[in-house]
Amino acid sequence: MNCVEIFICNSFIVALIAVGNMGEKELGQMDRCRIIFLPENVQVSVKPGMTLMMAAAEAGVEFEGPCGGRGVCGKCKMNIVEGETTGWVLACQHKVTTDLVVEIPQQEIYLSRKTALTESDWDIEADPGIVKKNIKVEPPSLSNQKADADRLLSALERPAQLKLEALRSLPHVLRAANHEVTVVMAGEEVLAVEAGNTVAKGLYGLAIDIGTTTVVGSLVELTTGKTIGAASSGNTQNIFGADVISRIQHAAKGPKELGQLRRRVVQVINRLSEKLAATAGITPGEIYQAAIVCNTTMNHLLLGLDPRHLAPAPFIPVVAHMVKAEAKEVGLGIHPHAQVYVLPNIAGYVGADTLGVILSTGLHHVEKSVLAVDIGTNGEIVLALPGRLLTCSTAAGPAFEGAQIKCGMRAQAGAIEKVQIDEQVTYEVIGDVSPKGLCGSGIMDAVAEMFRVGVLQPSGRLTPKDKADHLPQAVRERLQGSGAEARFILATSEETGGEPVYLTQKDVREVQLAKGAIRAGIEVLLNHGGVSPEELDEVLLAGAFGSYIDKHSALGMGLLPPVDPEKIRAVGNAAGAGAKLALISQEARQEAAAAAQEAQHLELSTLSEFQDAFIRFLNF
Amino acid sequence: MNCVEIFICNSFIVALIAVGNMGEKELGQMDRCRIIFLPENVQVSVKPGMTLMMAAAEAGVEFEGPCGGRGVCGKCKMNIVEGETTGWVLACQHKVTTDLVVEIPQQEIYLSRKTALTESDWDIEADPGIVKKNIKVEPPSLSNQKADADRLLSALERPAQLKLEALRSLPHVLRAANHEVTVVMAGEEVLAVEAGNTVAKGLYGLAIDIGTTTVVGSLVELTTGKTIGAASSGNTQNIFGADVISRIQHAAKGPKELGQLRRRVVQVINRLSEKLAATAGITPGEIYQAAIVCNTTMNHLLLGLDPRHLAPAPFIPVVAHMVKAEAKEVGLGIHPHAQVYVLPNIAGYVGADTLGVILSTGLHHVEKSVLAVDIGTNGEIVLALPGRLLTCSTAAGPAFEGAQIKCGMRAQAGAIEKVQIDEQVTYEVIGDVSPKGLCGSGIMDAVAEMFRVGVLQPSGRLTPKDKADHLPQAVRERLQGSGAEARFILATSEETGGEPVYLTQKDVREVQLAKGAIRAGIEVLLNHGGVSPEELDEVLLAGAFGSYIDKHSALGMGLLPPVDPEKIRAVGNAAGAGAKLALISQEARQEAAAAAQEAQHLELSTLSEFQDAFIRFLNF
Repeated sequence: MNCVEIFICNSFIVALIAVGNMGEKELGQMDRCRIIFLPENVQVSVKPGMTLMMAAAEAGVEFEGPCGGRGVCGKCKMNIVEGETTGWVLACQHKVTTDLVVEIPQQEIYLSRKTALTESDWDIEADPGIVKKNIKVEPPSLSNQKADADRLLSALERPAQLKLEALRSLPHVLRAANHEVTVVMAGEEVLAVEAGNTVAKGLYGLAIDIGTTTVVGSLVELTTGKTIGAASSGNTQNIFGADVISRIQHAAKGPKELGQLRRRVVQVINRLSEKLAATAGITPGEIYQAAIVCNTTMNHLLLGLDPRHLAPAPFIPVVAHMVKAEAKEVGLGIHPHAQVYVLPNIAGYVGADTLGVILSTGLHHVEKSVLAVDIGTNGEIVLALPGRLLTCSTAAGPAFEGAQIKCGMRAQAGAIEKVQIDEQVTYEVIGDVSPKGLCGSGIMDAVAEMFRVGVLQPSGRLTPKDKADHLPQAVRERLQGSGAEARFILATSEETGGEPVYLTQKDVREVQLAKGAIRAGIEVLLNHGGVSPEELDEVLLAGAFGSYIDKHSALGMGLLPPVDPEKIRAVGNAAGAGAKLALISQEARQEAAAAAQEAQHLELSTLSEFQDAFIRFLNF
Repeated sequence: MNCVEIFICNSFIVALIAVGNMGEKELGQMDRCRIIFLPENVQVSVKPGMTLMMAAAEAGVEFEGPCGGRGVCGKCKMNIVEGETTGWVLACQHKVTTDLVVEIPQQEIYLSRKTALTESDWDIEADPGIVKKNIKVEPPSLSNQKADADRLLSALERPAQLKLEALRSLPHVLRAANHEVTVVMAGEEVLAVEAGNTVAKGLYGLAIDIGTTTVVGSLVELTTGKTIGAASSGNTQNIFGADVISRIQHAAKGPKELGQLRRRVVQVINRLSEKLAATAGITPGEIYQAAIVCNTTMNHLLLGLDPRHLAPAPFIPVVAHMVKAEAKEVGLGIHPHAQVYVLPNIAGYVGADTLGVILSTGLHHVEKSVLAVDIGTNGEIVLALPGRLLTCSTAAGPAFEGAQIKCGMRAQAGAIEKVQIDEQVTYEVIGDVSPKGLCGSGIMDAVAEMFRVGVLQPSGRLTPKDKADHLPQAVRERLQGSGAEARFILATSEETGGEPVYLTQKDVREVQLAKGAIRAGIEVLLNHGGVSPEELDEVLLAGAFGSYIDKHSALGMGLLPPVDPEKIRAVGNAAGAGAKLALISQEARQEAAAAAQEAQHLELSTLSEFQDAFIRFLNF
């Protein structure tokens, strides 16, 4: 497979949008501070009093900032190299008062390890509902004074309507290659006319998976269904909060704020499509179709739909069905008339990303019992039974993504990804570097091992050092502090060559809450489906996190119900794979629409059995 | 009829577009001149060296300038009241070097006398293809967690798709009036959802006639077909030339220039729709449909289609068929999803305006022989015979609209509109003021009378004073100068209280060229139709000019072939009336498309018989 993986640098990238912000900026240039951001050497002029983070946002440079400017994650550090005072500051806390030159630390690019579902898994023919057709048009003359459009339509020999942009380029394109052209048609609509014969060049589409934290794009050649390249980037909406609730709250402030969120995700997609197009040697304007999966909040923010009624009960989305719109309506910088299919939502907190999982793993027509769990910032769970789809969603929180965990970080160089505790604590680090923090799978491994050996008690309490005689000496020494200050050192200062890497009591509580919510959701689905854990034929772990975790750890800490580990299978970015399917197949789009209708959603918040289960499964 | 006529002030208004120009403006504010335009008190900052006309264009203020900045018409006079030097200057010639306060002279608003075709003339039922439907939607609850869109569609009880803007407003609109809403539907598409029951408020559409010189808009209530108001404005593209060829040449320079022209006409339409909406007590966003007629060049400039191939033979338009687009695609500030019908063109120089004349006067199904002449900047001629439509176009030039005529002016206060020459020269002036110039009908009356009494010779030559003994003394004295400098005074300095009003030899030549071209076009059409002038059952004069001219003058000067004056009938703005029909009737739109297909266009430039006729009819 001719597939290139690009990973745009920086964990929790905040690639803020220069263009989008220009409109918000005032034109007056009086009494402003000029800031130059290195290494990109981007300059911006801002009002004094603005935070350095907002200035960087204005400048459109990329930086980390997972906590959304609340000053708690400590990850937006920048180095002021010229200015009244120099040195490292937290960008979200530092107010600009003078001209500055600021250096933003660059992260090494980490190539994702995850294995998406490959095309060979699919038994589906490419039928994208869009074609290229090469034709020769009669040139104009005094004996054929017909309009360009009429001569083109004569040559097409089929009923067709020309979209406005196709008309706009028509006179030039017709005359550029002696009236030989290639027409791009979706149904009866002529989206574009290209000069000469471009059929062999291919016909391109974009599959997008918008996560709360990460946006993943794939460029697909539509006639073959082959993936040409994939790229991902942080979702730069995170400056307004790491979780969907914070973003809903921001969007609810008014149309301007909703617009800020909308522009940010649109800009991320546009950056990805530019990179992907460049890789394939085409322009973004040659991408003629897109399919998008995302959770319901991301869906609303992308489409500029007010998400305020998603947050409080009864959690009402503006739209659930598939939205078909033109790229320019959505703001995407691909061909303006490209048809964009935003896959249907199932419910307020079960979005098209879950539908993508269903579609790509075939859950909508299983003949056995399959449980699928997609753990991201939210945890979406699907129980597929013959002729039946049950879904629910739990607010897992971003604990498993490394956010709101003191030493948490994304899965990139320096992240501890595996932990084992025997006589000693041993771990594996991504990349050939010293440990800097813990990524999601490292957190889960650590918690599972800590529980297994007795560093953690079943209640989730860190065992006080003075009551930890059962632990090997080398392990016991890693227990530090007490009460709320208690923590367990995973990598010491000696090992890191700097700050130690550890889990705090609060970190453990975060993990417990997330694990309890997901496990309780699974329990409720199984009850409603009338299936016991033993009766499950398969358990699918979807999403980036699902691909990395150790299934024994997941079972050990009680995240998953007791099943034979052999039945557990990671399916990678199944949501994104569903977007690809919807992109290349009209039939898949129809199936997606039907599955969204069929799926029966359980609103956990209304079920007392969920609360009971949640409390029961908080413990390890 | 509840019809309000508004006339936005200033002849040959150059209402240039501030917003459009902001994009072109540089952001740097260094070394710029600040200009304040009175009486609107609009401020703009421009680079030194820019002409005052371009500065006024940047500011978006309205002013006259029919010659397009060539310094020949003398009509863009402005009064510098503060600055290094003060006093009256020609704005197109005066370069800005310092800060200025400039007063633009205001014209009195003149209410148009013209009588458009009234609704009673039409035997057609309003069937606009768009409806309002009042429904009650079930509120959301934990037992009905369906999306807003789904609950709306359930209540609609018919298949429907919601457009994106309808989705965007949906959550607010549903909750604004206890889930009672009014849905605006075009076919199966929900364009908009309004809060409460707005059916009684009416459903509005816009009919637009874009002329090279003037843009006329009408607001129509679509369920009744009633015209609520009409307004007109100068076509502000005239800064790039008064005629279509100059504008084609400007647009051909590149996409930026094409964009300039496009934005100007879009802005004019948007101003008109704002005014009209205000009159009706609605917002422009409540206008849900539009129909537009215009000549082929205006069509291309409105739609952003490159018109360069219209100018040279074989005169190829980009598109001839009806273009259906959404308002936001075209840039119109009415409802973004409003369907805009741009009526089909017949040929490169016979546009949808002529089709509008055909549609509103029923030329496409006559059972007799009817000649229709629409004289604007171009002259379009239609010969309708049973089962047959013949069309042609001649470049009449703007002579009959008062442009390129030394004392020419638009039909407003101070314009001489009727002339009679007996023992004395007598005339009628529009408004209770002294004469200031000649409008189109005054020019034609003057020329016809001058020829009748012998001030003009059949060749078009002004009779030298010393050979004018046949003229009454009071008339003869009005012949002044000789050769190219010869002129005939229509209103003396004593009568005007200022400059005299006169026609020059050059003015007469302009009229001769226009008259010769139109008469020759008529001749060719009659020949091809096999009809003699006497066999014509009716001659229709369309357009503003056609409404005002004295038919005896038109016959006397030879503009029209010799027919019984009783057969000549003015039909007002028949093009605009055609736009209204297309706006309120799906059937009329279908008829328009069919008539455009049927019409047989004669390309005069390829016919030697036209050139022969042109030379023959140059003489009076």
